[in-house]
Amino acid sequence: MTAKTAFARNQWYVVAYGTEVGREELLARTVCGEPLVLYRTEEGAAVALADRCVHRRYPLSASRLDGDRVVCGYHGFTYDTTGTCVYVPGQRRIPRTARVASYPLVEQDSFVWVWIGDPALAATTAPPRAPWLADPAWATVSGMEPLAARYGLLVDNLLDLSHETYLHGGYIGTPEVAETPITTEADDEHNIVRVSRRMADAACPPFYAKSTGIEGRITRWQDIEYHAPCLYQLHSRIAPVGVLPEEDGSDPNGFHTEIVYAITPSTENTTYDFWAVARDFAQEDQEVSDFLHKFNREVVLQDVTALDLLEKIVADEPDSVQELSINIDTGGLAARRILRRLCEESGTAEGTAEGTAAAARAAR
Amino acid sequence: MTAKTAFARNQWYVVAYGTEVGREELLARTVCGEPLVLYRTEEGAAVALADRCVHRRYPLSASRLDGDRVVCGYHGFTYDTTGTCVYVPGQRRIPRTARVASYPLVEQDSFVWVWIGDPALAATTAPPRAPWLADPAWATVSGMEPLAARYGLLVDNLLDLSHETYLHGGYIGTPEVAETPITTEADDEHNIVRVSRRMADAACPPFYAKSTGIEGRITRWQDIEYHAPCLYQLHSRIAPVGVLPEEDGSDPNGFHTEIVYAITPSTENTTYDFWAVARDFAQEDQEVSDFLHKFNREVVLQDVTALDLLEKIVADEPDSVQELSINIDTGGLAARRILRRLCEESGTAEGTAEGTAAAARAAR
Amino acid sequence: MTAKTAFARNQWYVVAYGTEVGREELLARTVCGEPLVLYRTEEGAAVALADRCVHRRYPLSASRLDGDRVVCGYHGFTYDTTGTCVYVPGQRRIPRTARVASYPLVEQDSFVWVWIGDPALAATTAPPRAPWLADPAWATVSGMEPLAARYGLLVDNLLDLSHETYLHGGYIGTPEVAETPITTEADDEHNIVRVSRRMADAACPPFYAKSTGIEGRITRWQDIEYHAPCLYQLHSRIAPVGVLPEEDGSDPNGFHTEIVYAITPSTENTTYDFWAVARDFAQEDQEVSDFLHKFNREVVLQDVTALDLLEKIVADEPDSVQELSINIDTGGLAARRILRRLCEESGTAEGTAEGTAAAARAAR
Repeated sequence: MTAKTAFARNQWYVVAYGTEVGREELLARTVCGEPLVLYRTEEGAAVALADRCVHRRYPLSASRLDGDRVVCGYHGFTYDTTGTCVYVPGQRRIPRTARVASYPLVEQDSFVWVWIGDPALAATTAPPRAPWLADPAWATVSGMEPLAARYGLLVDNLLDLSHETYLHGGYIGTPEVAETPITTEADDEHNIVRVSRRMADAACPPFYAKSTGIEGRITRWQDIEYHAPCLYQLHSRIAPVGVLPEEDGSDPNGFHTEIVYAITPSTENTTYDFWAVARDFAQEDQEVSDFLHKFNREVVLQDVTALDLLEKIVADEPDSVQELSINIDTGGLAARRILRRLCEESGTAEGTAEGTAAAARAAR
Repeated sequence: MTAKTAFARNQWYVVAYGTEVGREELLARTVCGEPLVLYRTEEGAAVALADRCVHRRYPLSASRLDGDRVVCGYHGFTYDTTGTCVYVPGQRRIPRTARVASYPLVEQDSFVWVWIGDPALAATTAPPRAPWLADPAWATVSGMEPLAARYGLLVDNLLDLSHETYLHGGYIGTPEVAETPITTEADDEHNIVRVSRRMADAACPPFYAKSTGIEGRITRWQDIEYHAPCLYQLHSRIAPVGVLPEEDGSDPNGFHTEIVYAITPSTENTTYDFWAVARDFAQEDQEVSDFLHKFNREVVLQDVTALDLLEKIVADEPDSVQELSINIDTGGLAARRILRRLCEESGTAEGTAEGTAAAARAAR
Repeated sequence: MTAKTAFARNQWYVVAYGTEVGREELLARTVCGEPLVLYRTEEGAAVALADRCVHRRYPLSASRLDGDRVVCGYHGFTYDTTGTCVYVPGQRRIPRTARVASYPLVEQDSFVWVWIGDPALAATTAPPRAPWLADPAWATVSGMEPLAARYGLLVDNLLDLSHETYLHGGYIGTPEVAETPITTEADDEHNIVRVSRRMADAACPPFYAKSTGIEGRITRWQDIEYHAPCLYQLHSRIAPVGVLPEEDGSDPNGFHTEIVYAITPSTENTTYDFWAVARDFAQEDQEVSDFLHKFNREVVLQDVTALDLLEKIVADEPDSVQELSINIDTGGLAARRILRRLCEESGTAEGTAEGTAAAARAAR
């Protein structure tokens, strides 16, 4: 565990839900140490600009829109959607260097993704998908909780679900989660870690019993797919004990839940914890949706409380403190290894978050 | 923009309004990183001593007066108005080194000025004047707002009034302020920067219309005179369009407002923002005074909010971050240049606030 | 005064009152920078373990008991009272290195003492005694106030009672305390400092008059015995003027109060201020007990307020700032000298609190 956080640059990150970006208020978010301001044009396109006026560093998020342009609230420097300055006070000539960075942006699956790194490289790759979240065949609840902890602690947390039994006992945890061994697979070429836990005969968490109508014990599968650095998917399948998918791969008797997290590093010690839960059953049942939103948010807040506490501990400890890893940590350790490589590849291996952000600014 | 703040020593600074210094409570203020305690003698003279007992560093401002002497609230070390220790507990002999610094002090124009630097040099210069503030021919409203920002940000702010249009729109700003070019003059010999903006035909801010009775558009002059490091004057003149001063310099048909700021560095990242507004019209109208006090305080607080926000940004950024300056910044850049020289002359050019304060203590 | 705090290791420290340690809640305390968790077994024995799970550093104090074992609230690592891990999730084999430190512990005189340092050395010495606190012949009131100040400031405070006259005027201070010279004796072999102040004819603080029935002036003895680093005793004797102990050492006409402090360093800038007042008069009078608890707590809080303020000052000052010491400081300076030697002997002389804690962890 290092006391400093490195960021993987030249990557797509979720910065917001599409519904959070509008015209009434400018949205300020910091991703990988870079301050961004987000808004929509009159035609509805989302825009992400660097949130610092070139003149005296005033945050554009504390400004206002004039049509599709942002007018700085301090001295009126005005920027168009490409970040080019189109007005300065007291003179007609606009300096040629007067522009702020504009960030490549993709909207899909209910998320707004921004590219952090060299904009010229954005077209070389696409953000990973989470199609269920915007698919009318699925019912989705979602939210975002800010975390006062480095993003690595959330990656650790989500890659090892044995904590469900203890931190989320009575919610989504049952004894079988901690007891059942996992299989782990690291796909270093595509930066994906897969962790699979297949419980053939497990207690049914009360929520699932209620929303699926299953009585008695269940077959419960938890198949994690982590697309480093930002997107985490937990493919969850439950069914009465012994009920498996058909030979052709279809699964009419299973109940499927897609639990999606976007793990977005904000600063060295803060993280955006986007969470969404999509299901292919009881889609029309508003009571189930309401309950699931409340319930899953409580589970996320249990993690937030634990990780905020843990951040204070690791932030105070020297780098030399040892952890003790066991089998359940295989997925988390694979994720750390891939993240370390992604940081190295973006030139910030030994760098800190501060260094990264400074490098980013210098590079522009 | 440097992340560290240097202080110009061997200078006069406003530490308080005279009305803030009394006998009921000892007043604690920190100027250029030096902690001071202020009080009045029984005869009414203001006294400024270093706010740290020589014994165990307890703040004398947490103590009490015994006649004209300060009795330390921890162990009773007692100091006279010159800072000499005249009593210690448990023994008769008082160590010869038992004294705290006493600061040269001048009361004028409603302000208490203290000399920060070598006391022997205090007599070589006098604090600049702001005579309107104590002149019965003028009506004055005033206040002080503490700023959680380095003093340089307030100097920048006040030397470039184009921000009135944006930050104070609807208050003192109208479009003409940002649109009208300025003339700037730097008097390096006397450490004065002058910035002049003369609007021949401008909208009249609602307040001025109400208090002067002028209908329609106005001629509006804003003549800044910044006496570095501490005193800022804005000589404001308004009159109906086309109405100018007489040939002999008299100006019976103009309305004059003297807006005075004392910009006093407290710590590296905090500043005392003293503000006063004197007018030579409607002097007896209490309603105008009340309105003007409330109104100008709101304007000052708009600056406070903006600068406190800006401080957080620049404090987190590396020194290498570039600003982009244009014509409106000529006055501010001249002020920065003079302040840098004053810091150099007082030997703290490359020093930080901490270094400065340490040097100050070591020198005594 | 150094800005960094060194800790004396291989020493006993009071971590809690026995009544604070139970089974309902795990008690978290940090001593000399080392985080501890305390609880009682089903049989009632107090246990002190390191408060960090070996797996991912989660605090065991945020966990729960299972019988006499602590179950980590994050992933279920389970420890017995010796700190040995007896369960991990998802596998049968428990790594041999899976253990947390268990701290030697002694309960006596109402206190729980823990040994900070090499556990093998704990048996070489015993914690100092304060027998009055658990003696039915004495009536005791007690409490603990957390201090946002380094422990050295509390040692300074308690070794020089002349501050009673100023900081506690109207409470326990009268003019004679500051006026009366002291005698000091440093026993470097046993790490004890004695400071004695014998007032033959002094005003009687109102509280003593009320609880003893003495009218008029008193003979007042204050005999300090500081057992560095943690235990401070103030043997207080009052009697009508001229009434002395008998030749055989008995003292039937004196009123005795034993004021005990345990000064326990928590972090570099925080301290536990345990205080207890035992008396051999009016033992059955609940009104006196209630008053004395309230009254002495107020006195302690006067110190807390002053020392918290002083900490902020010294934390901001460079190490080069000079203090001025006089006769009253002889005891405090002797205590500082002994503490410095104890720190040196435990290898943390030039080390900081952080270094100390890191060394402690590395050594395990």
